[in-house]
Amino acid sequence: MFPEYDVIVVGAGHAGCEAAAAAATMGSKVLMVTMNMNTIAQMSCNPAMGGVAKGQIVREIDALGGMSGIVADKSMIQFRMLNRSKGPAMWSPRTQNDRMKFSEEWRLVLEQTPNLDFWQEMVKEILVEDGRAVGVRTSLGLEIRGKSVVLTNGTFLNGKIHIGEKNFGGGRTAEKAATGLTEQLVSLGFESGRMKTGTPPRVDGRSLNYAKMEEQPGDEDPGKFSYTDTKPLTKQVSCWITYTNDTVHKELQKGFEKSPMFQGRIKGLGPRYCPSIEDKINRFAERDRHQIFVEPEGWNTVEIYVNGFSTSLPEDVQYKALTKIEGFENVKMFRPGYAIEYDFFPPTQLGLSLETHLVQNLYFAGQINGTTGYEEAACQGLMAGINAHQKVHGKDPFILKRSDAYIGVLIDDLVSKGTQEPYRMFTSRAEYRILLRQDNADIRLTELGHAIGLAGQDRFEKVVAKKEAVELLTKELNKLKVEPADINEGLETLQTSAVKEKVAAGHLLKRPQIGITDLKRINSSLETLLNKYATEVQEQAEINIKYDSYIEREEQLVQKLGNLENYRIKTDFDYDRVKALSSEAREKLKRIKPETVGQASRISGVSPADVSVLTIYMGK
Amino acid sequence: MFPEYDVIVVGAGHAGCEAAAAAATMGSKVLMVTMNMNTIAQMSCNPAMGGVAKGQIVREIDALGGMSGIVADKSMIQFRMLNRSKGPAMWSPRTQNDRMKFSEEWRLVLEQTPNLDFWQEMVKEILVEDGRAVGVRTSLGLEIRGKSVVLTNGTFLNGKIHIGEKNFGGGRTAEKAATGLTEQLVSLGFESGRMKTGTPPRVDGRSLNYAKMEEQPGDEDPGKFSYTDTKPLTKQVSCWITYTNDTVHKELQKGFEKSPMFQGRIKGLGPRYCPSIEDKINRFAERDRHQIFVEPEGWNTVEIYVNGFSTSLPEDVQYKALTKIEGFENVKMFRPGYAIEYDFFPPTQLGLSLETHLVQNLYFAGQINGTTGYEEAACQGLMAGINAHQKVHGKDPFILKRSDAYIGVLIDDLVSKGTQEPYRMFTSRAEYRILLRQDNADIRLTELGHAIGLAGQDRFEKVVAKKEAVELLTKELNKLKVEPADINEGLETLQTSAVKEKVAAGHLLKRPQIGITDLKRINSSLETLLNKYATEVQEQAEINIKYDSYIEREEQLVQKLGNLENYRIKTDFDYDRVKALSSEAREKLKRIKPETVGQASRISGVSPADVSVLTIYMGK
Repeated sequence: MFPEYDVIVVGAGHAGCEAAAAAATMGSKVLMVTMNMNTIAQMSCNPAMGGVAKGQIVREIDALGGMSGIVADKSMIQFRMLNRSKGPAMWSPRTQNDRMKFSEEWRLVLEQTPNLDFWQEMVKEILVEDGRAVGVRTSLGLEIRGKSVVLTNGTFLNGKIHIGEKNFGGGRTAEKAATGLTEQLVSLGFESGRMKTGTPPRVDGRSLNYAKMEEQPGDEDPGKFSYTDTKPLTKQVSCWITYTNDTVHKELQKGFEKSPMFQGRIKGLGPRYCPSIEDKINRFAERDRHQIFVEPEGWNTVEIYVNGFSTSLPEDVQYKALTKIEGFENVKMFRPGYAIEYDFFPPTQLGLSLETHLVQNLYFAGQINGTTGYEEAACQGLMAGINAHQKVHGKDPFILKRSDAYIGVLIDDLVSKGTQEPYRMFTSRAEYRILLRQDNADIRLTELGHAIGLAGQDRFEKVVAKKEAVELLTKELNKLKVEPADINEGLETLQTSAVKEKVAAGHLLKRPQIGITDLKRINSSLETLLNKYATEVQEQAEINIKYDSYIEREEQLVQKLGNLENYRIKTDFDYDRVKALSSEAREKLKRIKPETVGQASRISGVSPADVSVLTIYMGK
Repeated sequence: MFPEYDVIVVGAGHAGCEAAAAAATMGSKVLMVTMNMNTIAQMSCNPAMGGVAKGQIVREIDALGGMSGIVADKSMIQFRMLNRSKGPAMWSPRTQNDRMKFSEEWRLVLEQTPNLDFWQEMVKEILVEDGRAVGVRTSLGLEIRGKSVVLTNGTFLNGKIHIGEKNFGGGRTAEKAATGLTEQLVSLGFESGRMKTGTPPRVDGRSLNYAKMEEQPGDEDPGKFSYTDTKPLTKQVSCWITYTNDTVHKELQKGFEKSPMFQGRIKGLGPRYCPSIEDKINRFAERDRHQIFVEPEGWNTVEIYVNGFSTSLPEDVQYKALTKIEGFENVKMFRPGYAIEYDFFPPTQLGLSLETHLVQNLYFAGQINGTTGYEEAACQGLMAGINAHQKVHGKDPFILKRSDAYIGVLIDDLVSKGTQEPYRMFTSRAEYRILLRQDNADIRLTELGHAIGLAGQDRFEKVVAKKEAVELLTKELNKLKVEPADINEGLETLQTSAVKEKVAAGHLLKRPQIGITDLKRINSSLETLLNKYATEVQEQAEINIKYDSYIEREEQLVQKLGNLENYRIKTDFDYDRVKALSSEAREKLKRIKPETVGQASRISGVSPADVSVLTIYMGK
């Protein structure tokens, strides 16, 4: 009934979609198994992609040849570049999306991918032979053979939904939980845990009074995620901002005695940085209000996502509290918010390729690894899909370093340190964030994606041309000197001091008051030069010149610390032979099986002394 | 948390959508309660609307002011007028639809309907006070008050899905069943039963060889359902036809010993006229092949609906048999077909308004009444929604007679005779099918729909103008005489005999060889006259003239038999007072509570003698 597949992907959320698309595009015969083909790429939580650090990840996925950026672009209803007032390392693209269209576009992408088949059913069991995954068994009892298996089960594994004092099984509202898999994995020796996440109520936009809220329009000159030729928006939908207040908090507090979190019925830890509203008023009792983002769910629907109001309090408490928010006086709810508990597997059980230590050719990606967020899930799916393909084709694992990408940071964090609570990406987690910008993800990654057969030839050529153009323009700007007489008037209008002698254009660009568009305005020969280059090339050259000392410093740091990353450790390395290691370090190293001394150095409990010992040992 | 609603609609399929839209449009405060707002108006079975007799129903729904026609038009990918070679009573419009778009369009219609709120949850119980429905209780325990309740639970009540020897609870593939309601209704005294329906496997269109199939394109000059200004298609998608064969049948027979139907695991009766493929090869053993319609699921998706191959045999048997069909040699399945058993309530427990006898202000519509088919469900939903509105506003029930509409036939059949198996509409069920045509549904019904406040003023005015124009044109055609010299040449080209003296244009139209477009072609004064009128007016006048004797005969029949429909019977009428009734008739009449002597006459077990007795009694 089924051929033997190269890669079987279980689940069809952000992780599953990227995994399946990547492996199939690279040439693997792929089967996607999902409980419901109508819910492929459902945005279970807010209808948005990107944001701080997450937007960088979407750009990285796109640069490697993943599809999240393209799908987000095709379904966006609003685009904003966050943190534009800060330095370029902090710039973060974010889209508001049409929930239905996002799902539809992903499905079309997958259907149009050659080598990718679908099967709608629940997977109950991984087939394991000689310590290697060789397929899956479904709820109907079908055995489907596959040379590798990627698990992307999201919140479905033994999912349990809580609203006030009530709880019931479910993987998402109105959807069944998945059962059987956790139990099997535990029997194979995997350690599992429980995590918790939550979602706010959805309300009827027709019942809101927007006149009482602040409008949050999209960017005037909207961008997009993908480096391909997706189109930016010509019209956009606004979001709205309002606030909770003391009365709202008092209403919510009335439900605390029925809270599944506060009363201990929920055992799993929730996402610290995406807390429920009851968590926020509890933990930050001094704050008299919290921001609420009123987000439309699409171009046409009246459904609204009440971002910032995630809650598992009883539905009547949710409702009453909502009515006390400015603009929500006459609110009509469509469905209550809820918390959901689900099984995850501490990711220290994985290698950097996301393959499990215990079972070969078995990969985990997404919330099953204890992460939260669409982008975090998508990039893990992408990497797991790539690595499953690489493995079954006898190729080297594809590992991104911490200095290559946020994706590298994320996976290294997960597998080296594990996580006690849902892991979310932040710019602060990256030590090289001046290098890991959203604007240069293509320059950083597209050649790598192309080399493994994922990013297409057109992407590759585009990036090579862009790199060359950026280098050329950077050189030209640093070379071209302008006379004081030709620019001083312009400099005055920019409120920056005049120059006394000839100066290189690049030199001017280092002044904080002067951007590349200013150069064009104040001098016609500069305008002529710059107009020969595409806008993205101009921007890239600008950043290269303006921040060259910062960039250089980080590059030196990579060089210096990067040495440790080059000391590779075999996964079957016998730490017992290294007597000089502390016993704590030995225990951790044996469990986590770091793949480089660099990775070992980031494991908590491995001291600088242990790192020295390892360095000497591996240096031999 | 909730206001008191006028009408609470439980379910959001074809019946629920029409019920909610109708009642809200008429001015009721309506709440739609559905287990999943993402699956509003899911086409659970084939992605098509209309067909023989069913297309007439869609036109009737549209004429009354319902929305199924408009939604079908907006989401169609192909249009065909079936039976065009037969008389106009048999013409039946049918659309192939984009499954996702159909659902999306319905949701947008509902969201844009004022007075209509939504709540996502399962209803566990009807609140009943003093024998009257006063609201619902949900799975979270919420009490929502409503002056009336319309149940449209489809196949969800204790739904049980069968595939081969396996079975599991579910309302639809990958969706939970609804529990609790049946048990409560039974405790209130309702009689319930089990029915069964089924659906075929879905397959990957990329794996089919269309070169081996017959193409079935849409009409060259495609029409549409709605009398409103929805747009006909300018491009269409083709369906394809292939056939089973002896090898296919043999493969299927291998699974018979595991068939849930043949082995008695399924207790409910299935739809006789929409049988599973195993039923077909079993019941019609003499036929060496059965037709398979290969239907695309939308504009872009590769998913294919294998119409005619509904089955609950084991999935490997389904697969093996499919591969033996011409063009399916390399087929890839997305999901297997299955059978589903669900609870229904024999519809003899309802009045003609679809209100239950046992509980006032409680209405049932759709599969819960033992019907099958989207159109059958939708029209019941429409009528239940209308009648719930009428009731809570102290207005008369809105009943369509058998001579008014197929909808009248359907409801009268259901409540007077009940049904042992899923009830599907056929033209043969209507005794006045020359009157109940798809072309004149607006003329028959729009004024009625307008009078109750459902069909809008624009529809009303359009129909009044159309009726006047048709009458005028009919008169003019019957009056306008043409000279033999002016038409005989044209008559010859149409291969019909020449005339010898002046003849009325209408007279010519009675000849089977001559249609209204022919008249235009053969005579310029006729062309001038006809071109003053819209095409639909011309068509209507043509039918009026061509078939006037048939139409007149049926109208006389309506008059004659219709007298019995005018003898109204109060629902609390005491049949025990009528000693002359046979005891079987008395028992049936007490149970079914017919609302007219006409309805009583159609109850099996009520003899012509009993009808005479009743007529005399009611005539007093």
